[in-house]
Amino acid sequence: MTAVKRAASMEGEAFSTLCTPALVVDVDGVKRNAQRMIERCQNLGVQLRPHMKTHKTLECADIMTGGSRRCIVVSTLPEACFYADHGFDDILYAYSLPFDKVERCAALSERLDLFQVLLDHPHALDQLKKRPLRDGRLWHIWLKLDCGNGRAGVLHSEPEALTLAQAICETEGVELTGVYAHCGNSYNCKGVEEIQTVAQETTDFTLQFMEKLRTVGITCKSSIGSTPSCSHPVKDMAQLSEVHPGNYGFYDVQQTVIGSCSLEDVAVRVLTRVIGHCPHRNQLLIDCGWSGLSLDGAGKLPTGYAVIEGHPNLKLLSMTQEHGRVEPISGPLDYSKYPLGALLALIPYHSCASAAMHPVYHVHSEGRLLGKWIPTRGW
Amino acid sequence: MTAVKRAASMEGEAFSTLCTPALVVDVDGVKRNAQRMIERCQNLGVQLRPHMKTHKTLECADIMTGGSRRCIVVSTLPEACFYADHGFDDILYAYSLPFDKVERCAALSERLDLFQVLLDHPHALDQLKKRPLRDGRLWHIWLKLDCGNGRAGVLHSEPEALTLAQAICETEGVELTGVYAHCGNSYNCKGVEEIQTVAQETTDFTLQFMEKLRTVGITCKSSIGSTPSCSHPVKDMAQLSEVHPGNYGFYDVQQTVIGSCSLEDVAVRVLTRVIGHCPHRNQLLIDCGWSGLSLDGAGKLPTGYAVIEGHPNLKLLSMTQEHGRVEPISGPLDYSKYPLGALLALIPYHSCASAAMHPVYHVHSEGRLLGKWIPTRGW
Ligand SMILES: Cc1ncc(COP(=O)(O)O)c(C=O)c1O
Ligand SMILES: Cc1ncc(COP(=O)(O)O)c(C=O)c1O
Repeated sequence: MTAVKRAASMEGEAFSTLCTPALVVDVDGVKRNAQRMIERCQNLGVQLRPHMKTHKTLECADIMTGGSRRCIVVSTLPEACFYADHGFDDILYAYSLPFDKVERCAALSERLDLFQVLLDHPHALDQLKKRPLRDGRLWHIWLKLDCGNGRAGVLHSEPEALTLAQAICETEGVELTGVYAHCGNSYNCKGVEEIQTVAQETTDFTLQFMEKLRTVGITCKSSIGSTPSCSHPVKDMAQLSEVHPGNYGFYDVQQTVIGSCSLEDVAVRVLTRVIGHCPHRNQLLIDCGWSGLSLDGAGKLPTGYAVIEGHPNLKLLSMTQEHGRVEPISGPLDYSKYPLGALLALIPYHSCASAAMHPVYHVHSEGRLLGKWIPTRGW
Repeated sequence: MTAVKRAASMEGEAFSTLCTPALVVDVDGVKRNAQRMIERCQNLGVQLRPHMKTHKTLECADIMTGGSRRCIVVSTLPEACFYADHGFDDILYAYSLPFDKVERCAALSERLDLFQVLLDHPHALDQLKKRPLRDGRLWHIWLKLDCGNGRAGVLHSEPEALTLAQAICETEGVELTGVYAHCGNSYNCKGVEEIQTVAQETTDFTLQFMEKLRTVGITCKSSIGSTPSCSHPVKDMAQLSEVHPGNYGFYDVQQTVIGSCSLEDVAVRVLTRVIGHCPHRNQLLIDCGWSGLSLDGAGKLPTGYAVIEGHPNLKLLSMTQEHGRVEPISGPLDYSKYPLGALLALIPYHSCASAAMHPVYHVHSEGRLLGKWIPTRGW
């Protein structure tokens, strides 16, 4: 290949060939983020069980599991099936057992070496009792504990938590595999100190509960996590069995505001093009609306719904389905900098939400497109 | 089939068999909404060109076009290709010509009887000039006019609008098919009177512009629309060639707030199940988060992100990816009314946004499931 030809073909694989809006993933960034989390967990001596909900792709799962295809968390059953269909195993469906999905959970439990469910209520245990697994298999159950997150889970401080753990242990056909506490309350933090306060508190409550279990003769695994807390773990997390962060593969602007990472770590962008000049409003139009970015992050950033890379004076003010309105934070827009058709890169406020809008992710290394990742969707 | 068997099989096809969250479409409601719009346009004497962006399915397009599969608007090229692949024609891609998609537009123009593009800038006309269509075909161009919406379009009052129309007419290989003004500003209205004020204003500005065109010897079609304005058209809209509403197939809570329709007209729900009781917070958890509903409508309704059908005292307070937090607007929650696993129906604030989150819609008639509609996605 001549030098000219190679340059041309590389040009042909550049961002400029993409139709917008397009979600682009910097695979080197993902690898760096994944590797750092793997090393952090190795240093701590805890098992990393990465959550797949942000990306829902095989390729990113491979990177996050270091190629093992073992030990993951999923948020939906289509994710579980998708990964199971592609040779993944040791899958934890970390969602308070949905009664409508017991049969699908049973099928996965009977098919995989290790499919694990989660529950936080005796009724859910009743549902599992009613559906014993074939071939003497056991339901592998994680007990969901609320250690201050204020979403799902039995309150760690309530006697019901211990009672439910004991009921699981006493029930035939099931096994108490672990105790799971997601510290989503770390999303209210600003800075490492606050993150570590939440991480410490969640760890303390979880370890105290594990101690209570031991006093009644129960031992099982323990897992806490979130991207903020696992990006800045506290020493005592070494006493846990596992951690379960997920967002860190991509990271996002929200994580930079919390203090989990720096903007350079964010491995995902939504590419968009300038499609209109509106000098009478001092605005630009871009071809990314909420269908390409999501409405997550409203009112959170001085730059609006995203950070526009390399243009700190631009604000993504509002979006309709396929349009975004951009204006300068101050002063008049210099339209000569933003000709019609010009590419802009939006750094998403919440990468889970932006990724959820895209049926395809375009993967690149240093701006050269390498291929596509196709996420799974639905319920 | 015995009566008992029939009852059982009908039960087997009921909502209770659906895994949640699930988007369900009341096909009778869609047909009523579509028929009413068809009749309203017939009575006015204008051509209805329904927009597909809300649902993006073949089945709903069939209903909205009265089975003709002709004369539609789309918001993306995958929609255009999807409909073209299934025998639809006379398709208007009503999006300010994106330069990255000229070649795909050309392919559709050369393949369909009538594929139409839209533009609002002389640069876009230059792009089309550079790509003449094969076999002597013409680019069919709609000029996008901004009649007060404040998004895309040349301002109707600016001399540039007329200049651009003339430039289109004078350019070889293209034809000025029509003038398109979307009155999205009708979404700021409350009540029929305000809606009709916007409808009247958009109509007046458009007709004035058509008159200016005529004085320079140009005739072409005209189209305005939005679901609010076409649900309550003003008499003068009869002087337009076409209208282009889209949301009315499903309608939604936002449209009831604007005054386009009543809550009974909303033909879409997101079904969800109770998955947690949180008496210490006076809250319920449901299995619908933003991935099943979208975050559209934040802060707009006393009932939060949606209306929970049949439960006017419930508020959908907040959502994470797969969880919703529900609390009573006043008083303590009576948990006996909401057992774990109980189904709730969310009436979406914005059906375009909720539908965009679902890879499958479940279609029913009076609660009996009839089948699935699969939308197209992406760009
Ligand atoms: C139950 C559960 N586990 C783990 C995670 C992963 O946490 P993060 O998104 O902070 O990485 C989440 C995220 O929402 C979660 O809901
Ligand atoms: C250009 C254009 N035309 C038509 C429509 C349809 O209007 P509505 O959604 O109010 O039915 C829309 C909606 O956003 C639009 O953007």
